[in-house]
Amino acid sequence: SVAFDPAEHSHRRRNPLTGQWVLVSPHRAKRPWQGAQEAADERRAPAHDPGCYLCAGNTRVTGERNPDYRGPFVFTNDFAALMADAPDAPEAADPLFSTQVARGTSRVICFSPDHGRTLPELSSAEVRAVVDTWCAQSAELGQRWRWVQVFENKGAAMGCSNPHPHGQVWACDFLPNEAATEDREQRAYRAAHGRPLLLDVAQREAGGERVVVSNPHWLAIVPYWATWPFETLLLPRFEVQRLPALTDPQRDDLAAAVRELTARYDNLFGCSFPYSMGWHGAPFDAGDHAHWQLHAHFYPPLLRSATVRKFMVGFEMLAEAQRDLTPEQAAARLRALPATHYREQA
Amino acid sequence: SVAFDPAEHSHRRRNPLTGQWVLVSPHRAKRPWQGAQEAADERRAPAHDPGCYLCAGNTRVTGERNPDYRGPFVFTNDFAALMADAPDAPEAADPLFSTQVARGTSRVICFSPDHGRTLPELSSAEVRAVVDTWCAQSAELGQRWRWVQVFENKGAAMGCSNPHPHGQVWACDFLPNEAATEDREQRAYRAAHGRPLLLDVAQREAGGERVVVSNPHWLAIVPYWATWPFETLLLPRFEVQRLPALTDPQRDDLAAAVRELTARYDNLFGCSFPYSMGWHGAPFDAGDHAHWQLHAHFYPPLLRSATVRKFMVGFEMLAEAQRDLTPEQAAARLRALPATHYREQA
Ligand SMILES: O=P(O)(O)O[C@H]1O[C@H](CO)[C@@H](O)[C@H](O)[C@H]1O
Ligand SMILES: O=P(O)(O)O[C@H]1O[C@H](CO)[C@@H](O)[C@H](O)[C@H]1O
Repeated sequence: SVAFDPAEHSHRRRNPLTGQWVLVSPHRAKRPWQGAQEAADERRAPAHDPGCYLCAGNTRVTGERNPDYRGPFVFTNDFAALMADAPDAPEAADPLFSTQVARGTSRVICFSPDHGRTLPELSSAEVRAVVDTWCAQSAELGQRWRWVQVFENKGAAMGCSNPHPHGQVWACDFLPNEAATEDREQRAYRAAHGRPLLLDVAQREAGGERVVVSNPHWLAIVPYWATWPFETLLLPRFEVQRLPALTDPQRDDLAAAVRELTARYDNLFGCSFPYSMGWHGAPFDAGDHAHWQLHAHFYPPLLRSATVRKFMVGFEMLAEAQRDLTPEQAAARLRALPATHYREQA
Repeated sequence: SVAFDPAEHSHRRRNPLTGQWVLVSPHRAKRPWQGAQEAADERRAPAHDPGCYLCAGNTRVTGERNPDYRGPFVFTNDFAALMADAPDAPEAADPLFSTQVARGTSRVICFSPDHGRTLPELSSAEVRAVVDTWCAQSAELGQRWRWVQVFENKGAAMGCSNPHPHGQVWACDFLPNEAATEDREQRAYRAAHGRPLLLDVAQREAGGERVVVSNPHWLAIVPYWATWPFETLLLPRFEVQRLPALTDPQRDDLAAAVRELTARYDNLFGCSFPYSMGWHGAPFDAGDHAHWQLHAHFYPPLLRSATVRKFMVGFEMLAEAQRDLTPEQAAARLRALPATHYREQA
């Protein structure tokens, strides 16, 4: 009888951070595609766009004028999804109709004044300034809010409504679903094994077949349980719970890892690679968080080319996430690419 | 001080079927949109397309020729994500790297030979034939497989790779994530309250502000905890666990409810409304399933118009789903529309 081969046979893998499974269908990468294609626009945008509401010196919809900023620039979102002062909702006694008030704030982080350069196209010092901004925002918002979600939606395919390179930070007084789930699973793992789950993962994966980027302090891997085709998990190789705790050398290495990972992404299909990325660290509350390990997720949608994405629809929405190539195949492809961005190569 | 108003203030609502929360930001519908736009193509396609691999009499990539079918036509997916005979995977002892073999099959269901007519544009008898096909496929595949997932991805925005109106059915030997979660929550509710959760929901919602379609046997509501802007939940008003158990009059009413719901969807923005929909019924195994109630979810992505969708990215992927209008507002808009498809109106 045939032996099980993960690169040939349909199987499921379990995500220990969420307890959810993903269906892996490696034999399916061969099917033809007649569906939607994304637009691929590969001209680099100008350094300043007079019509962009994020560029330095321009005026936003509210009438406010952006300063003449030189490094990262942070302001409160003009259409924040969270309000700092919503009144209390009535107590939810009914299990079928539960409501909770949700308070918080949301901010926009412009990475640099340059309208046309994304993270891998910025200098090391400029990316380090972005890292410092992530850390400082987390520290500041963590004083007031329980959960601080730093993230970036990159590219029109990921709902980004303005091409000026920017991220966001949403902070709130509740533990969102994903945070609550990762909290539960990491807590259970530490109770059973005595060590943070993701520190064990980093140690086990170092030098292995799922590594994409590796430097003294950081590791980017395609996790064993990745759902998106080229999903990665950016892990510290040392114990740390939150962004603000990172030291200078750890931040330098982080900037280098982010630049290299995003350059490899862009090099994969020779395009500005869309993704949503974001940071998960311990909640900012008084609880015990020894089980928490800081990490970032990158969720990029592209599957076959700059214009053909993976759709998480139908079976995925109703039953279970499904992928068409193995995480090991994805990591090998990303690892085989140059570490330098294609636009910067001589 | 101000009183809490769900149509004004940010809040969270809990989905009792999954235990997950959704962040509701009703004040946010006002923000401008500069992001991606979907293509809206409103010409009706011809009844037969010689280049379509789903049309009657045409040849598929495998070289197989479709019969000259007149009603629904079912065949095994030429690029199935599940294999019926994958060999056993090695036992997963390691909590960080768990694998399970996944066996199953997947089929395509062409709704009718007409390449240009979607569900609300078919006659009642033709939609009833689709309902019968869903039931018959579930019955047949349920003999061999534990979970039978009937679904439809409609429109290029939902990853549909061929515009010929069709759905799919994937069957597998495991309980997928969503099924396992709904199983757990429905079981807990019945243990606590003595009745199926969704039967209580149908009873409480009938005639209320979240109803979109109502007939003697069925109810379509925008659930209190909807995540997608115009998400709906199609519920039987009687106790039933699986599709094959539906009686003749229940099937007739179901066909009418599906036609009316999808007509209202198309009428909302005057376009062929994209969505993923699918059925959840009790697993086909020997367990006790008295807590299960059959239902269908419709997950449509459009938010503001035929070309502007809601993106579940960034905060949604990393933290929690978020919506920009209340479920009550969505239901009111769908209810206010004509029940007849705009193309069929005199
Ligand atoms: O099977 P299709 O229509 O080719 O593919 C579509 O539906 C599948 C099941 O929901 C998804 O896995 C694919 O990502 C999607 O493009
Ligand atoms: O805030 P933006 O960039 O306008 O909007 C984007 O990011 C948000 C946070 O992930 C999402 O809720 C929106 O659906 C998306 O379009």
